[in-house]
Parts: sequence; C-alpha cells; structure tokens
Amino acid sequence: MSRVSFEEFQAQRAEFIAQEENRALGADIVLNEDERKVNEYLMKLKKAELDIGFNTPSQFLPSRHFFQVVDKIKASPLFQLIQKLPKGGILHAHDTAIGSMETIVKATHKDHLWQYGEFGRADTPRFKFSRTKPDELDGSGWRLVADIRKEIGNEGYDHNIRNLFSLFNKDPLNSFHCINHIWGIFANIFMSLEAIVTFKPVWEEYFYQSLKELYADKVCYLELRGVLPQLYDLDNRTYGPEEVVRIYYDLVEKFKSEHEDFIGAKFIYAPHRLCDDATFSQYMDIAERLHQKFPTFVAGFDLVGQEDLGRPHSDFNERLLKMNPSIQFFFHAGETNWNGYTDENLIDAILLGTKRIGHGFAAIKHPRVLEEIKRRKICIELNPLSNQVLKLVDELRNHPGTFYFSDNYPVVVSSDDPAFWCASPLSHDFYVAFLALASARQDLRLLKKLALNSIEYSAMSKAEKVEAKHKWNISWNNFIDQTVKLVA
Amino acid sequence: MSRVSFEEFQAQRAEFIAQEENRALGADIVLNEDERKVNEYLMKLKKAELDIGFNTPSQFLPSRHFFQVVDKIKASPLFQLIQKLPKGGILHAHDTAIGSMETIVKATHKDHLWQYGEFGRADTPRFKFSRTKPDELDGSGWRLVADIRKEIGNEGYDHNIRNLFSLFNKDPLNSFHCINHIWGIFANIFMSLEAIVTFKPVWEEYFYQSLKELYADKVCYLELRGVLPQLYDLDNRTYGPEEVVRIYYDLVEKFKSEHEDFIGAKFIYAPHRLCDDATFSQYMDIAERLHQKFPTFVAGFDLVGQEDLGRPHSDFNERLLKMNPSIQFFFHAGETNWNGYTDENLIDAILLGTKRIGHGFAAIKHPRVLEEIKRRKICIELNPLSNQVLKLVDELRNHPGTFYFSDNYPVVVSSDDPAFWCASPLSHDFYVAFLALASARQDLRLLKKLALNSIEYSAMSKAEKVEAKHKWNISWNNFIDQTVKLVA
Repeated sequence: MSRVSFEEFQAQRAEFIAQEENRALGADIVLNEDERKVNEYLMKLKKAELDIGFNTPSQFLPSRHFFQVVDKIKASPLFQLIQKLPKGGILHAHDTAIGSMETIVKATHKDHLWQYGEFGRADTPRFKFSRTKPDELDGSGWRLVADIRKEIGNEGYDHNIRNLFSLFNKDPLNSFHCINHIWGIFANIFMSLEAIVTFKPVWEEYFYQSLKELYADKVCYLELRGVLPQLYDLDNRTYGPEEVVRIYYDLVEKFKSEHEDFIGAKFIYAPHRLCDDATFSQYMDIAERLHQKFPTFVAGFDLVGQEDLGRPHSDFNERLLKMNPSIQFFFHAGETNWNGYTDENLIDAILLGTKRIGHGFAAIKHPRVLEEIKRRKICIELNPLSNQVLKLVDELRNHPGTFYFSDNYPVVVSSDDPAFWCASPLSHDFYVAFLALASARQDLRLLKKLALNSIEYSAMSKAEKVEAKHKWNISWNNFIDQTVKLVA
Repeated sequence: MSRVSFEEFQAQRAEFIAQEENRALGADIVLNEDERKVNEYLMKLKKAELDIGFNTPSQFLPSRHFFQVVDKIKASPLFQLIQKLPKGGILHAHDTAIGSMETIVKATHKDHLWQYGEFGRADTPRFKFSRTKPDELDGSGWRLVADIRKEIGNEGYDHNIRNLFSLFNKDPLNSFHCINHIWGIFANIFMSLEAIVTFKPVWEEYFYQSLKELYADKVCYLELRGVLPQLYDLDNRTYGPEEVVRIYYDLVEKFKSEHEDFIGAKFIYAPHRLCDDATFSQYMDIAERLHQKFPTFVAGFDLVGQEDLGRPHSDFNERLLKMNPSIQFFFHAGETNWNGYTDENLIDAILLGTKRIGHGFAAIKHPRVLEEIKRRKICIELNPLSNQVLKLVDELRNHPGTFYFSDNYPVVVSSDDPAFWCASPLSHDFYVAFLALASARQDLRLLKKLALNSIEYSAMSKAEKVEAKHKWNISWNNFIDQTVKLVA
C-alpha cells in the first residue's frame, strides 16, 4: 500500500467534486453571459446567508421553524430576488389553501353571512351565507356577522378570522405535540372554512384572487388539486362537481385573457382518502364524468388527507385499476415518517402508474422506489415548508429533497397549502429549497431547472408545453435583463 | 395505455416488496429454526412499540429526545431483550466518554483530590489530585474535596459531579439553542473531566470499569478513539503517549484473561482537529511511534472535535499523504448538517483511503461518496443518539441511517460518547436504530448483521476475525438458546 502524491490527490479531489456537481439537479443547464452575471449576484446573496448560518447556526433561517423566521425572511435580499424570478408552475397545491387569508377576511365583510358559536371556544364557529336566519343546528344560535362586527369591531373580528383559518402560531415548537395533533387542526381549518368559501360568489373571488397572487409571485401555471365541494348561493341553488370545474375553467380562461403571459391551469380531482367504499365509488364516477367532459382541463385523479390516518392505498387498488386507463394518476404518497407502514403507498402509486408523486418524503427509504422514480421519470412534488409545518421534519437540511437534488431526481418544488401557514404562493418554498435542500454549490441553474421541470412534468400536452416554455422564456429573459441592469 | 389486472398487480406488488426486502441490510442472513423462534418474539415486541407509535405518535420513543424518554426505554421489553443480545463490537467511541458517570463519582471520593472554584458558576470548577495544595491558578482557592464533602454532604457533592459531567437535561429542546452551543458544553465536559481522569489510578480504574460495562452490555470488542492526554500521579511522575497506550494494552490483556469470551480491543489515535501546524506535526510523530511500537494494538489515525468549527480536512491532506502508508485512517467525516461546506471532509476522507467513516451523516447528500462507500466497502459508523443529542437531527426517523439500512450500505451502529448522555454502552443506540432507522420489516437478521459487521469492518486481522467470530458465535448461540427457552 502506498499513498498518492499531493498533486495527484488534488487532481482526484477536483475531479470528484466536478463529478458530483455534474450529476446535481440543474447541472445540464448552460447559462448565457447575462445569466452568469445574475448568477454571480444570486450566489453572493446565497453565500452571505450560508456564511451567517455557518458562523451562527441559530441565525440560519431555514433551520428554524418557518413561523419563527417569516419576518426575517421577508427582509432577505435573496428572498426578494427569488420573488422576482419566474418560477414556472405550481404542480402541488390544494383548492382552498392557496389564496391568502385576506380574501377570506374580505368575504366575511359580505352581507348575509351568519355565524353560529363564538370565537375562542373548543367548538369552532360555523358560518353560512343566507338571506334569512339558517335553520341548521339550534336555529336560535345564529347571528349575523354584521351584528357581531358591530359589537367587537372590525379589527377584532378580522383578527379572529385570521386566527381561525391559519396554523400560524408564535410558539410552534410547543403548540403542536405530534403530527396527528397538527393534522387535526389542519383538517378543521378546511372544514370550518368550507361554508364561507363554497358560497359561489366567494368561491369565484377566492380562486380568481389566488391566480392573481400566483401571478404576482411569478408563478405562471397551476395544477390544482381539489375536492370539489358543493357550492351554494342565496337562491338555494347548489352546484355540483361539473359546475364547479366549469367555474374553474371559465375563470382560468378569463385570467389568461387578461394576462397574456400566464400559461394556464389544470385541475386534478382529489377527494378525501378517508371514505367508505360507496363514497369512493361515487368519487370514481365523478372522475370518469369529469374526464369525459373536460378531457384536457381535468388532468387526472388523486386522493388527499393524512396518509397515516387515512385508508391505505391497498384498499383502493383493485378499483383504481378498473378506472378508464386514459385517466392519469397524481397520487400523494410517502407523506409520512413511518417505514414499513403508510410509506408503502409509494409502491402502490408507482405500480398504478402514477405520473407524479405528491411529497414522496419517505421514498428515500425505498431503494426500488428510487430506481423506478428515475427509470419512469416520475416527478416528486416537494413541499418543504408543508413538511416542516405538518411536522415531518424540523431541520430542513435533513429533508430528503437534499438527496433528490444531489442526484438529479425528477422533482419540482411546490407549496401545498401556503395560505394556511401565511407563506407566499411559491417563493418561500423556493427560498428554503435553495438554501437548505440545495448544496452551497448549486446556483441559478438549479432554480432555472426547477422552473423548467414544472413545465416538463406538468400534465400539459406536448403542444401546450411548447407554448408554455415560450411564454416562460420571455418572462425569464425579462427577469434576467432587469436583474442584470440592477447588478451591473 | 391500459391497466394491469388486479391479480397481476398483486403479483407485481409482492415482487416489488420482496426485492426491497432482499436488498436491505441483513437480508443475506439465514436464520435457523431457533433463531426464527426468537425472531418471532423479537418482532412481536417491535411491532407492539411501532403500533403504539403509529396510533399515538407522541408515544413513539425514538421520535422524542432521548433525555425525555430514557426512563420509558428502560421499561421497554424490546430494549431489555436487546440488552441481552450479543451485539459484537463498538467501533466508534471516545476514551473518557464510555464508562458510566459513577466511576467518576467514585473517583471524587478518593483522597488527595483538590477543587478550585464552586459548582454552579459560569467558570466550572477545576480539579487536581495532589499530596499538597496545588499551586496552579490562584493557589489559595484550592480546597480538599473531602472538606467540601463534609460541608455539603456526599449526596449533594455527588449530584453536582453528575451534573457537571453530563449533558443530561430535563428540558433538552429549550436548553441548547444550536449545535455550536451544545458542542461548547460537550467540549467543556471533556476538559473539566481531564484532571480527574488523567490521574493514573483513576485512568486505570475508569478504563477497566468501561470494559466491564461493555461486557455487561453484551459488547465483546472495542475500537477506542483516544487523544492520549498526559497522565500523572501523586509522585509528580507523568506518563506520555506510549505509556498511556501501554496501560490500555495491559488492561485489555488483563480483562481478556479474566473474561475468556471477550474478544479484545484496539486503539485509534485521534487527537483534536483544532490545532496549529506544529502541534499537528507532533501528532503525526506520535502516530508513527505508536504504529512502530504497537503495530497490531494501535489500529490507526483519526482527528476529533466538531468538524464545523475545526480545521477542514483540506488543511491536513498534504501532510497526511506523507504518513507511513501502513498507518490506516478511520476519519470522522460528514458529522454536519451543512452541504457544500464541512461535509466535503467526506471527499478527503475517501480519497485519503479511510478504512471507515465516523458518522457519515452528510454522505447522503453526496452521490459519488455513496458510490465509493459501496465500491470500496468503507464502513459508516452510525451513532444515532449522539447525532440527536448533539443536534444534527431531532426525529431519528429522518436519520440518514434509514437510507443506509434500506440498501445494505456497509454500516455499524456505535455509541460515540454514551456516558455523557447517560446511555448504556451500546444497547440504547441499537434500540433506536432497530425502531427508527430500520424498516418495520427488518428483523433479527438486521441485528445479527450489525453484530457481524462490527467484526467484519473492524481493524482486526483475518486471523483475529476468525477467532472473534468464533467467540461471538458462542455468545450468540447461548443467547438464542436462553431466549428460545423463555419464549417457548
């Protein structure tokens, strides 16, 4: 045995690092001269934040709970640059958890809104829009929100609404004692919100406002997962799944006509996995009908809800295999810390031919799953902040995304339910992914790749992707032009 | 596109799961009939704890901080079984952090021990054994420990000692604000402890007692990393590196002669990485001398101390390459959350030809490192509890060991500094590894493989390994025989 010379060692070391850099996500992107200048600036900002963290670990923002650092992130020049960067599309986000809380607050200023029960009680208040006092529950308990507002003032009322419909909490580490606890609160928000947001005028405003917020956050495409709740109006008309999808479709078209650089949106029907067999059959029927009626706008099928407490995939496989084979799957799978339990949903999802995997947090514990993800190019939809808030991981540098990023797995970064944790539509997730999931060496090429992946792994047709890339390219070049001027 | 039949799907699913099971750590072990019975019992205990955790996540012990659950683990029948299981060797543990605190407490009952400074102050007290009042520091501040004991009572004094020399803390989540903070306290313990433990009679008792505790915890082999501090006695004699190693060697031989099923121990010289160049040169000289003098007992060389705050490997590579090529390396590397900083020590360690890697926590972020670990069979020494206590990871199910276990990486489970967190020599780390790093499907074969790996990847010669396996096999078979009787 002998040791190599130092010169030989240094050559080997440089080669080794180059080999790792070459297989990381984004390494295949070639930057032009202007992009290289922007990259230099971006990396200066990134290095500054990493160095602060390296010297004072408690100051490294993505290591701490998002709720503790959201104000500090706002002040980060790196975050501000990422806000301006065209990030492509969001491929993983849920219907009523995308748009900011303020749209909901605004909705509670509308006439004809009734409230049953008080704020701050164990039983959260119920709401309903109605011309006359609702007769559900104990009829006498309903009061007009307008009257309550007079009593406690608009500021107090709005504050209560914001509290009610968000997980945001000043002491997150001590407030949620386990994953099932926070998921319980999380599911409650969806439920209490429902009667406000399913009022047809609010539904339309909420979705349109969500598109505006995406657009402002430099997101130009959306694949929306939704449960399609029944909508209602003041004339006691209700609106079923096809009508709700029609509303989505029309609003997307309207938005596109008003924002020509917006690429569009598609819908993934994703009802709740905690259901009985009869209900599941209804879901499958709805999926078939939507697929017939909206063959391009409705991209496919998924199931939502906490995997650990929901029914395992194996309960549904036999019936899912009988679905019209032209309906594509976009399954949530592996959103769990367990290993040899719920995480085996990943195996079902893959064998069912899922096009993408929602979260795939546990995929790292399954070597065959990892192989199939690469072989079949199944995109993993990463939602780092969601995984932190919903208690899969505290320290984001331990997120499995670090592994997927290091070896060019097919991934996108998404945001899941950003409104519930007061995050921006996508920029906060991009920010933590860039600092905590990426290597210090990964640069603008990674961010560009993530944006391009969100088009590449979308449910768009080939022709749609060509148009989408064209639109995104224009935005990207504008961003580069503007940023080069600032940093030159 | 069409979907497969349910029968075909079920066959594919079973095949997929079998493929994953077959590549997991331990899958190559074939159990005999008695082992299968023990395995059934073991898996019943494991499943019971996993099911409790699955249903009530906050009750899953390895998910919580070790300090919060140490009493509950003591009561676990699974833990009690693992205590009795012959676990092979400890390949990663540090000189004065292996033996239990009680040996230190006992040492402070000895005559001629002096103390400077009081308990509970920011400046921790200093100690020295001496026939006369020491003249270091402000000479008048020294008091005989025996006199202090008279004042505050033995119980109170012992309590203070236990507090001083342990990280154990009832509120670990709020007590240590970052990794550098806890490493500071951790390094202080080593320093304050030094003057007690380097008193030659204490040193000898401490090491011998450590071997006894290992043996009682069903550990039959040790590769000890040590800094070789200078020892002293009451006659003002001091003892240098060779003499300290000689003490280790003689005590191991004595222990072996009194415990014929104990395999033995080897020593890895591992001085501190935070040193100047001149000191580093001295370390290298010592390493060479030890290698000449104890060619089989001294296994090789390593560097210790927090990697993030220590000098990077690249500072030492040129000189390390000049070391006698027959000195083997056992480098700590990748004991960090960073990605593109300190973690690149992994690349140096591999290119320097390290035989094993201490921790390798960050290796998961380096695809080429992972490849080389498999190709060159470089064993990763996992220390899950150490990584939790020293704040690399809270939730042990997010430990990269889950990945290494799932795909048969060459690994052992070790314990690093168990005394400092009041853990048993190895059983606690085996327990959390079996529940949190392993899949629910991984069974006795995993534990057997970990024990066998600790022999296979040790620094023993081929002939030594044959003898070691023979001894371990006898213990293992005894364990199986005894357990089969209990569970039959």
